[in-house]
Parts: sequence; structure tokens; C-alpha cells
Amino acid sequence: MSRILSRRDFLRAAGAVGGSTAVFRAAAALGLLPAVAAARPQIAAIRKSRKVLILGAGISGLTAAYELHRKGYDVQVLEASFRAGGRNLTLRHGSRIDETGYPQVCEFDKDPDLFFNAGPARIPGHHQHLLEYCKELDVELAPFINDNRNAWVQDDAMFGGKPVRAREYLNDSRGFVAELMAKSIRKDDLTGPMSSADWEQLREYIRQFGELDPQFRYMGTSRSGLASHDYTRADVLKKPLSPSELMKSRFMFIMSFGETDDQAAMMMEPVGGMDRIVDGFMRQVGHLVQLESQVQKIRVKERGVDVTYRRNGEYVTTQADYVLNCIPVQLLAGVEHNFPKDFSTGLTAIPRGKLFKIGLQMKERFWEKEGIFGGISWTLQDIQQIWYPAHGIHRQKGVVLAAYTFDPRAGEKFARLSPPERIRLAVEQGSKIHPDYGKYVENGVTIAWHQMNHMLGCAAQWEPELFQRWFTTLQKPVGSHYLIGDQVSYHPGWQEGAIASAHHAIADIDARERLGNAVTA
Amino acid sequence: MSRILSRRDFLRAAGAVGGSTAVFRAAAALGLLPAVAAARPQIAAIRKSRKVLILGAGISGLTAAYELHRKGYDVQVLEASFRAGGRNLTLRHGSRIDETGYPQVCEFDKDPDLFFNAGPARIPGHHQHLLEYCKELDVELAPFINDNRNAWVQDDAMFGGKPVRAREYLNDSRGFVAELMAKSIRKDDLTGPMSSADWEQLREYIRQFGELDPQFRYMGTSRSGLASHDYTRADVLKKPLSPSELMKSRFMFIMSFGETDDQAAMMMEPVGGMDRIVDGFMRQVGHLVQLESQVQKIRVKERGVDVTYRRNGEYVTTQADYVLNCIPVQLLAGVEHNFPKDFSTGLTAIPRGKLFKIGLQMKERFWEKEGIFGGISWTLQDIQQIWYPAHGIHRQKGVVLAAYTFDPRAGEKFARLSPPERIRLAVEQGSKIHPDYGKYVENGVTIAWHQMNHMLGCAAQWEPELFQRWFTTLQKPVGSHYLIGDQVSYHPGWQEGAIASAHHAIADIDARERLGNAVTA
Repeated sequence: MSRILSRRDFLRAAGAVGGSTAVFRAAAALGLLPAVAAARPQIAAIRKSRKVLILGAGISGLTAAYELHRKGYDVQVLEASFRAGGRNLTLRHGSRIDETGYPQVCEFDKDPDLFFNAGPARIPGHHQHLLEYCKELDVELAPFINDNRNAWVQDDAMFGGKPVRAREYLNDSRGFVAELMAKSIRKDDLTGPMSSADWEQLREYIRQFGELDPQFRYMGTSRSGLASHDYTRADVLKKPLSPSELMKSRFMFIMSFGETDDQAAMMMEPVGGMDRIVDGFMRQVGHLVQLESQVQKIRVKERGVDVTYRRNGEYVTTQADYVLNCIPVQLLAGVEHNFPKDFSTGLTAIPRGKLFKIGLQMKERFWEKEGIFGGISWTLQDIQQIWYPAHGIHRQKGVVLAAYTFDPRAGEKFARLSPPERIRLAVEQGSKIHPDYGKYVENGVTIAWHQMNHMLGCAAQWEPELFQRWFTTLQKPVGSHYLIGDQVSYHPGWQEGAIASAHHAIADIDARERLGNAVTA
Repeated sequence: MSRILSRRDFLRAAGAVGGSTAVFRAAAALGLLPAVAAARPQIAAIRKSRKVLILGAGISGLTAAYELHRKGYDVQVLEASFRAGGRNLTLRHGSRIDETGYPQVCEFDKDPDLFFNAGPARIPGHHQHLLEYCKELDVELAPFINDNRNAWVQDDAMFGGKPVRAREYLNDSRGFVAELMAKSIRKDDLTGPMSSADWEQLREYIRQFGELDPQFRYMGTSRSGLASHDYTRADVLKKPLSPSELMKSRFMFIMSFGETDDQAAMMMEPVGGMDRIVDGFMRQVGHLVQLESQVQKIRVKERGVDVTYRRNGEYVTTQADYVLNCIPVQLLAGVEHNFPKDFSTGLTAIPRGKLFKIGLQMKERFWEKEGIFGGISWTLQDIQQIWYPAHGIHRQKGVVLAAYTFDPRAGEKFARLSPPERIRLAVEQGSKIHPDYGKYVENGVTIAWHQMNHMLGCAAQWEPELFQRWFTTLQKPVGSHYLIGDQVSYHPGWQEGAIASAHHAIADIDARERLGNAVTA
């Protein structure tokens, strides 16, 4: 049992799922947490000159720029990279991938359906603020398919490494477990009063959960898919998978993947790529964004903040009343600054994810011939996942996600390889799921987020103890300097977390302005 | 326990789910069923004149026309209605609803997103033939959202009739049941050898199923949704729903709705309406389809078939080498014919569904403010379901499905009312889920399939005994007359079933032509 991928591993990693539950339990135990409704801060228009410098044009920086600019703040955004968006990065024909050591150019065909979301790629229905911005910024949304019962599950430990359909893996497991439970459970064992009706209800729940027969035996189920789909003949069930093989499978968290808070259906994606959101913000505040301007020095003063940045080899120092800073903390730690000791220690205390992704342009949408029109196949190999596009259905070509490593060891392994070697490894592993995988590959892009320039890490890897020790320290402004970004949220790795951090900071600035200057009082 | 909606009720009704499992068990017990791969029949081109008359331009009729026409058969399609498509019916601005007694005209705004699929509305990824035709006929597909954990579950029996989110209903139920099971299950109770590792695996399965804590207690879960989404604070879990209230809920089949063979993610829908498929076929064979031509008499001869139909008040008799007939059996029984006794008895032996649907144009997409962007809310009231569109996200208006009755009693109840009364009832019931529901309604359409002209019934309600007694009788040709349609398939109510029936018939015709005429021998 040395390499079980538990749900917790998954939750921790890369913010692929918000690491909420464990965190809650630690915090809730303290009885500290009121239920708070999140609303977008309604900040007051400003009547006097207030210079705001935003460091980093990721989603949090763009959110802050958008909100403050329209209220009359004098906003400037400094972005180190040649592009805005931060980890919101969609790769398509001609995109540059600015990885240190391994710069790449995306060679996908020029085609609106051939793109790859290298960072965030899905939006749940309760990510209310992000969805509101999509609406406001005219970003068209389409359903995103996360869970697909027709996709594959592959584990070298079971069935000799042969993939099985997710529907068989899940539903045959349910069937066998339900049968065991039904055999074992006894009314007398249960504490507390339980009426006969309740007892029958419970048994019926188990029966339906596993789709057991009236004698509470698991005899197979059409939920696992039919042996044939010739609907002019009576349905033939597949033979259930061997329970002993199923028991060998070690990554059971996918059994409940579709139930997790941030991953449950239904989810959405912007039509044409996640960076349509960046485009939307840039239409509003692009004129305030200065690219290729790398921050060198931050000096918090009694009033305001001085920031020095380098642009075209020149050093420029500028003053601001407020600074909102979404530079990744691991990079910020290396910038010259005068932050208090505790704050600067915090900058280095939070590990970062090593999320790695590959996107491959496939010359044929071969997965559609397998009845897969979106969603995720899972494997315990390094690549961990294969995603199929649910846009461009039935077109000739498509881009698949060929690796998505939330296991940092796998991320490191891939990152050490050159891009062609990475693709070779991903194809080798993907071939265990789709035997002819390699023959469809036309070209690919690879993203090691912890090697990407101006980034050098993926989402912050908060743990309950880290939250407790460092979160407030980092979230609280230092003078007029605010740290923002998904890194200062309880949902790192999600754009909604980035937006929340920006809202938190601008609400505070607004309060200071109202109190200190009585603009609206 | 008088009105439990069991999964079986659901399966039976209206073909909303293919009624496969129960059927299989009866048939499989006989050991009769080989596993057969379904492939589209590769029929030979015809070199001599072969007149084929197709009765009914539903999906099966159009499929047969398309396949036979391109192989050189002389095809004519007679359709009684003013439109092709059969139960594949999309309603939009100006559509006529040809219900006997209650003709309606759809008053939705003229807008590509404002449509209502009154018949089939979703396509699973394994409905291979239908999907192939979509590709071939240039029908653009988009993901369809069936299951949505953010949607509502409402049952007067629980929580005083107040709706709860599907994610809470499902996951809190899982939590409580898992805790009970974990408490009750004992290793010694299980038959057969089980290693300690297996035992731990089983316990871990139960723990993850319910997301129990390390002591196997259910303490709530983020799967059920958070109390707030202010991601700048630690997550606050919702208080789990009361287990005793959950136990009162009687429609547990939705617990596994997303696992059922034909309903599991991911599913698709044609962009712009299901009738894009009809349009696609009609682009190919529309010139062969004669509308408003009602069949009056069918006379099977030693060779060929004579068919008399009425058009513009005239009676026309025409001869064909083959007839493929998708007239609903309950109507066909009333047509003058010379079918053998057994066959004609079969025509009246299969009951039909009374599926009823309402589509309402809403002046605002209020559900999106509730975090619902597609999928289904469930209720035990007559309306049974509310569907939200996953197309046109964030636009001003949308069309919701406001009733989908697979319970025939509810279908009858609605059908007896006038269209305004139907809408009033649906709004009254929908208001238990969305309190302000009524104020958004602009107009609506109502469809009682068992009162629709030229239809007078929804999908055939096959039961295991009926299949055994009648299926082969009805499927087998009478001379050169073939009964087709989803009514002669093991998946009635699904277009894939209709297509399968057409394929079955044309393969037989092809075989007869090859043998009888040695065209390709």
C-alpha cells in the first residue's frame, strides 16, 4: 500500500480540488467560523487622486484593476511576463510557452477548436464571482464535461493493467460492496431506535445503490454498460468484473470524484479557451497593463508604497497609495523588500504545486469511436489523467490533455525531461489506455508550472497547520501593500479564489478610504 | 408506501430510460442471448427497380429512406402529419402543436436559444448509430447536462416540502447510510476468505463512499456544498440534513440516476434543437417525403404490398415491393389491413406511454442566480422534473422544461386540462422549488403525447412478458411489410431504438434481394 493516491493527496495537490474539507475540520473545531455570505464588494467611487499599483496581471490583479479603475482609482498594472493572465493560459496556434530551459511554441493547427487550457480549465456553477465576470465581460460559456462513465480507468495492479470502462469500474464495485453490506448488516447492530420501515428503507437504499436483485445479490447491471447495443434484440449485460481484481485497485477516490464540491456536475468552460476571461478583462483594463515589467524592489512607507521595476533594461521607481500584489510568494521572497520579518518568513513557508500538463493535437478524434465525447480517463501512471474535449464533437481533429499530474513526483519526473521526451513518455503511458494512441499524435505542448518563467510553481499547497500559522499574516496588509492571488485564498488553484482575494483587498482599501477621507461619509 | 416512484416505474415509463434491465433478467434466464455487435447494415446497391413505400417520416422511416434511397431503391415516404420527424419535435417561435382538441402555436421569441425539445432531448455517447448520422448529416452537437448536483430535490414528505440541493440530498444520505453500514458490518459475517487487506479496503470504500471521518462517523462533507463561498475564509460546512427527514424521502432512484446506462454522463444534444437531425435527414430525402398523406388501407400480397392513402380528400392507391411502416401500432390497428390474426392482435397488445411535457419561456434565467446552469430538479409532484437549459448560458431568457411526467396518472391529469390550466398547475407545483417561479413565465407550450394527432401515445410500454409474447411477432415481416420504429425495439423512446429497427428491416430486405435476385452474388 505504498503508493495509494488518496482523496487527500488529490485535494492537496495543485488546487486541482479545493483543499477545503480537512481545513474546515481543523478550523471548525475551534468554533471560530461564522457562516458568511460572499458578495462582490460594492466599493465607493473615489473623488481624489489615488494611485494603485497592481503587481501581476493574473486573474486577481485584473479583477482588482477592473473594479478599482471603474471607481476612479488611478490604476497601473505591472506584469513581468510578455502576456497577461498568469496561470490562466490557453495555448493555441503560435502560443509561446515561456518555460525556463524549455521554451516552446505551440504548433496546433490554426483552428478555433484546437486549443489547450494549460492552467484552469473548468468552472463550477457555484463559482459565482467568476461567472458574474464572464457575464459582464461577454465571455460565452459552454458545458464542460468532467465525469464520463464511458471513459477508462487503468491501473497496472488490476486486470493485468488493461483499462476498464469507468461505468464498469464504478458500478461493479458498487454492486459487490452493496452485496457484502447487505449480507453483513443486521438490524440489531444499529444503535438507536429504528422502525421496521426505516430498516426496509435502509436495505432498499443498499439494494438500489448496488442495483442488487430482489435477493440482494449482485448479478450485474446495465449501469455497467451492455454487452451489445443491438436494440432489436433483448439487452445482454456485461459479465461483472472480478471483485478480487477490483479490490486490487488502489485509487478509489475516483469513486466519488463526481461528488466533490468543486468537481461535481455541472461545470462550464469559456467557448474558445479559458483565456477568453483574460481577454474580457483586458478589453476593459488592457490600457492600464504594462507588460515585461519585472518588479525589483518594494518599499512600504508610512503612507504608500514605492515600487521599482525593470523594463527594457531600465529601472523605474514609482509611488503608489496602494499596492495589490499577486506575484507568487516564492518569487516575491526574492524581491528586495522591507516587509516585516514574520511576513517575509511566511512568503517562504508555503510550498507550491508542481502541476504538469501536456496537450496533444490528435489528427483524428479516435476517442469518439470508443463512445467518449468528453470527460476524463484515469490511470495510476505518471500521466494520471487523459481529458477529451467536449467541444468540436465530430470534427476531424482534437486536442487531448495527455497528462495532468497532481502527484508532485510525477510533475518533477516530467519536468526533468525535454519536451519531446515528455511527449514520448505520455504517449507510452497513454497507450495502455488507447493502444494506437501514438499514431494519432501530430504535435504537442508541455507545461511544467514550476519551471514556467515568472511563476516557478503552481498553486500554493496550504495545509491545515500552514493556514493556521500563516494565512492571516499573509492576508493582512503590510501598510498599504496587499498580497493577493489564489495563493491567499482557501481555494488556491481556482480562479474564484484569486477573485476572492482581490475582493478582500479592495473592500479593505474602500473601507480605509471611507474612514480616512470621509469621501462618502 | 402507496406511491413510491421506483426505478422500475421510471424504467417502464415512456422509454425515458430504456427498460433494459428487467427485460434482460427475464430473457437471460432462458440462456438465449448471444452477445451481438451492432453494425450499420452494409446493404448492396440495387440494380433493378424496387419500389419501397415508407409509412411515417419519424426517425426510423427517415433512416430507412436515407439508406435505401442511396442504394438505388425507389423510395417514397408517406407522412400523415403536416411535418416530418414523428416524436422528434422541437418547438420554437411559430411551431404548431397538433394536439387533438388543444391545438397550440408556440409563442416563444424568435431566438435560436429559445426552443423546446418536446420529444427526445438527449443522446448518450453509446448511441452510436444516431451519433454517426449526426456526423454524416452535419448536425452539430453540444454537451447536454442531465445530472446537476446544484439542482433541487423536492418531496412533500421531507423537510416540510422544502426543496434541498441535490448535492445535500445525495451526499448527506450517503454519509448517514455509510456510517450505519460501517457500524454494522463485521468481518466475521462475510462468507468466503477475506484477507485483512481486503477487509481494510472494504472499510475504506465505505468511508470514502460516505466521506466519513477517520472514526467512521459522518460529520458532514463539502460534497454537500459549503455554507458560504467566501474563499478568503476557511470553508464552513453545511450542517448535514436530518437523517430522519431524509429517510422519509421515497424517490430514491435519483440516488443512482446518473449511473443508469442511457442516462449517465456524458450526453449530447444537437445545437439549436433535436429536430436538426430531422432537418439533416430531410436535406437528403426530403424530396421523397409526401406530407399530409394518411394511410387508410394496407394490403399485403403474395408479392409486394398495396397501400391506399388519403391526400387532399383524394384516395390514392400505390403499389410497392416493400413497405416499411412506423405508424404507431395503436393507430395501425385502426387502419384497414389484411395482416394475420396474430400480428393484428399484437398491434393492440402493447400499451403506450402518456408522457406529458411543458416548456415555458422565462423572461429571466433566474436559475442561474441559484448556481444552476443546466440539469434537472426532481419532485414527487405531478410535474416530476424541471430541466434547465445548458445552452444560452448568461443570456436574458431561457426555456425550461416545466413538467416531464413519466407517471401515466400525472400525464392523464395534465392532459385533461386546457393548456392554460396545465401551465397554471405546473407553475403552482414549480413554485415549491422556485418560490418566484410564476413571475418569470412569459408563455408556454404543452404536449400530451397521447393526444397528439397521428400519434395518440408516446413510447411503447413493453414489459418482459409482452416482449416474450409479441416482440418477434411484430418484428418479423408480414410478406414484404415490415413494422419499424422505436416501438419495435428494446429501447423504445430512444431514437437509437428507432434506427435499430430500420436497420433490422433493411438488412432483411437486402438479404432477400441478394438471395432472390443474385444482384451481388
